[in-house]
Amino acid sequence: MPHYTKKDFPPHNVRRFLEPGPIVLVSSAHKGKTNIMTMGWHMIMEFEPSLIGCYVWTANHSFEMIRSSKQCVINIPTADLAAKVVKIGNSSGHDIDKFAEFGLTPKPGTHVRAPLIDECYANFECRLTDSSLIRKYSLFVLEVVKAHVATSPKYPKTIHYRGDGEFMISGANTSRYRKLFKPQML
Amino acid sequence: MPHYTKKDFPPHNVRRFLEPGPIVLVSSAHKGKTNIMTMGWHMIMEFEPSLIGCYVWTANHSFEMIRSSKQCVINIPTADLAAKVVKIGNSSGHDIDKFAEFGLTPKPGTHVRAPLIDECYANFECRLTDSSLIRKYSLFVLEVVKAHVATSPKYPKTIHYRGDGEFMISGANTSRYRKLFKPQML
Repeated sequence: MPHYTKKDFPPHNVRRFLEPGPIVLVSSAHKGKTNIMTMGWHMIMEFEPSLIGCYVWTANHSFEMIRSSKQCVINIPTADLAAKVVKIGNSSGHDIDKFAEFGLTPKPGTHVRAPLIDECYANFECRLTDSSLIRKYSLFVLEVVKAHVATSPKYPKTIHYRGDGEFMISGANTSRYRKLFKPQML
Repeated sequence: MPHYTKKDFPPHNVRRFLEPGPIVLVSSAHKGKTNIMTMGWHMIMEFEPSLIGCYVWTANHSFEMIRSSKQCVINIPTADLAAKVVKIGNSSGHDIDKFAEFGLTPKPGTHVRAPLIDECYANFECRLTDSSLIRKYSLFVLEVVKAHVATSPKYPKTIHYRGDGEFMISGANTSRYRKLFKPQML
């Protein structure tokens, strides 16, 4: 299991890790219980405030926990956690305690009661800032209020879902095109 | 420049290429003009109808073109087009004809008037199906009404933006975790 030492990270810059599109784990807490779900449908919606749109299936046990507690943590797992990520997505928090079942460590956050998953590369503490799109689109608009990111490596090896049981694993990172950007477009 | 032979692809399955989170090129047409923009903020919102949420900056020349024509095409460029993708994102359709400027080929679609970018790996013809979130979130809810995907390779080498001029290039694809999925979760 990976172990990462983390430091504070500016919430307005979480795109660095989310915009490439990795599968994430969403942890929540409500009425004394915790849960974890696997999520592939999310997007950056704003830098400041740091907004993230997330699709949560109504059938997910986490749906009501996040909606009621108005909080959650978006955690970024690395490729070495891929098997656990799949198993988390294939089981229900209605039946099991996922932290215990999958040997993951819940760590207290600083701004929300939902627990961070310690074994993940990054943890973004979120508040549900707009619930008006949940009914129509199952879309939760979250604000990242605190971010914790591993000090090393610079970029995680993330897993990206294609459906049908297939994943793309993140490849090389490059700055070779940086010189083509106008400064104001960076 | 890449050349792909394409075939029809089921719109409900475009997640295969979009859910991993690549940078895409959005082409549009309005009042006799065409344009292309680079877009990194998008997410799958539904399988059927095939809905995609897209954030389009109000400052983009494409913003009004897509909003007025209610159509566009989402094109998936591969890594060999990375320099053009950056240049497209750093210039404005207000000043130049991007197809001509960057040597890209506009190809007629079958369901929308916006042109496909022939050099891209995949082209998803889209209709603007919900404009009610544009004012608040610059969020365009698009429906993929026709999809064209290259017959080879099975998966494209895509580029994923991290901000600050840095890209992640898609890596290996794997089905090794497929056996861990419950059939109904695939």
